[in-house]
Amino acid sequence: MVGVDVGGTFTKAVLTDATGTVLAEAHRPTPRPGPGVAERVVELAGRLTEELGVRGPAPLAAAGLVVPGTVDERHGTAVHSENLGWRDVPFADLFARRTGLPVAFGHDVRAGGLAESRLGAAAGVRDTVVFLPLGTGIAAALLLDGRPYAAGGAAGEIGHVRVASDEPCVCGLTGCLEAVASAAAVARRYRRASGRPADGAKEVAALVAAGDPVAVAVWREAVDALAAAVCWLAAVLAPHTVVIGGGLSSAGDLLLDPLNRRVTDGLTFHRRPVITRALLGDRAGALGAALLAAETATTGRPTGV
Amino acid sequence: MVGVDVGGTFTKAVLTDATGTVLAEAHRPTPRPGPGVAERVVELAGRLTEELGVRGPAPLAAAGLVVPGTVDERHGTAVHSENLGWRDVPFADLFARRTGLPVAFGHDVRAGGLAESRLGAAAGVRDTVVFLPLGTGIAAALLLDGRPYAAGGAAGEIGHVRVASDEPCVCGLTGCLEAVASAAAVARRYRRASGRPADGAKEVAALVAAGDPVAVAVWREAVDALAAAVCWLAAVLAPHTVVIGGGLSSAGDLLLDPLNRRVTDGLTFHRRPVITRALLGDRAGALGAALLAAETATTGRPTGV
Repeated sequence: MVGVDVGGTFTKAVLTDATGTVLAEAHRPTPRPGPGVAERVVELAGRLTEELGVRGPAPLAAAGLVVPGTVDERHGTAVHSENLGWRDVPFADLFARRTGLPVAFGHDVRAGGLAESRLGAAAGVRDTVVFLPLGTGIAAALLLDGRPYAAGGAAGEIGHVRVASDEPCVCGLTGCLEAVASAAAVARRYRRASGRPADGAKEVAALVAAGDPVAVAVWREAVDALAAAVCWLAAVLAPHTVVIGGGLSSAGDLLLDPLNRRVTDGLTFHRRPVITRALLGDRAGALGAALLAAETATTGRPTGV
Repeated sequence: MVGVDVGGTFTKAVLTDATGTVLAEAHRPTPRPGPGVAERVVELAGRLTEELGVRGPAPLAAAGLVVPGTVDERHGTAVHSENLGWRDVPFADLFARRTGLPVAFGHDVRAGGLAESRLGAAAGVRDTVVFLPLGTGIAAALLLDGRPYAAGGAAGEIGHVRVASDEPCVCGLTGCLEAVASAAAVARRYRRASGRPADGAKEVAALVAAGDPVAVAVWREAVDALAAAVCWLAAVLAPHTVVIGGGLSSAGDLLLDPLNRRVTDGLTFHRRPVITRALLGDRAGALGAALLAAETATTGRPTGV
């Protein structure tokens, strides 16, 4: 199987065997936004599929493609991407025509969640899993009793719910989860509060570990906001496991320990989720695309998550 | 079909035809909590089933029973009820033995949600519906793409998530949704803030309509808390429709108009749910039990929602 994940900067592809083991991988810069970007993305995904496909032990049975933004898996279309600037692109059809293969098409975060739940941090968990990558943005992928739940692409958009009082957000609201708890937000808020540079959340995490009081305060606000979100997820869906991914998760226990404490404080008779760190890193989306492709090869259904 | 709904005060039963139309109904006081209460509830439910069953056009094909508290439909057991004081009761087995019929067993709120989504306020909606009864307590029933989602009985417990700053809650936390936005909470908070009596939320609603400033403030806090909850539900599940039920919903547009405005303010690119008032009143649970019974009669599976 080949799975291709179109990221904001890089497009990653993996060749896997039937069990999801990676046999080969490749990545290339994602085509720049602008006229024809969707066609160039399809062309790139097709080329990566061919390159990796010939390295497998047998001809490819199917290929999978996942993209960011709002994705309607049922209809095989990308409804909208702010960053890549497309609208209503019939990717499933375009990718099938380009490759001549049975294809799956899906959403990057939901595909990543599928991969973490089958092959990664929640492998073996049969009931509900939430995948929560904390990167430039925040959205959740929901696997309800093992089945992806998409709601036509609108599910899991928890990055833009109010959790704090006054932080302005790109979406136009204030106090959104993403505005205080994404990796990008943590770095930006530290720079603003301290007047000092910080390239990313990793640098802020190091300052937290070193006891920098501004970094500690910014970090605490991020953890409080994330804990509120996890408590809501626990109250609504009662997931068995919440898998934290994305750039912020590289902080490991510096993030997970206080998050676990705050979530425990915020719940009562609810089911308390296991909170754990993602295991598949930036391969999760491509692996999820390969899993979707494997399902397409088995079921003959054209699209995926 | 007969459906029986065991409430905190009354136990209601309905006899329906195959389409869910009510042919007859009955109610009796629910047995008092104490030793043997589960057996007395089963006996009462059995008696009501017999009484209504003989009034139908044909012998009963199945019966349904729904109860409050934590219910594990998959195993046919009531895990726990604070109010009725039981724990791990195998109701599906007990009710089947008492009636000699194929039975369904489920949760009162989820059954009510099923009824509202099939026969009531969300009839005809095929995708996700949330039923949110605001009574003594608050919990949500989730129908995801038409299928009840229970998570072993732990799903939808949104009454006990923090939405306000300092209101103490019976669960031991502070600021819970239920502590500010249940019908009981609205009446209690009005009495406390005004020093004046108020029997229930209905009386407070009348005072809001008359412009009583204390009632207006208490009402606004309840609406704000509910709006926060609906925004989280919209962000997580992107439901098509949210059906508001329970005692507080009898306030109608006095509740729904400001709730709609606050939810609109709190969402951005999310799918905005239709917010509507429940139509089945206190029959919803019994009707849901009858729907579950009809499914049991069709599928032969022993338990329901």
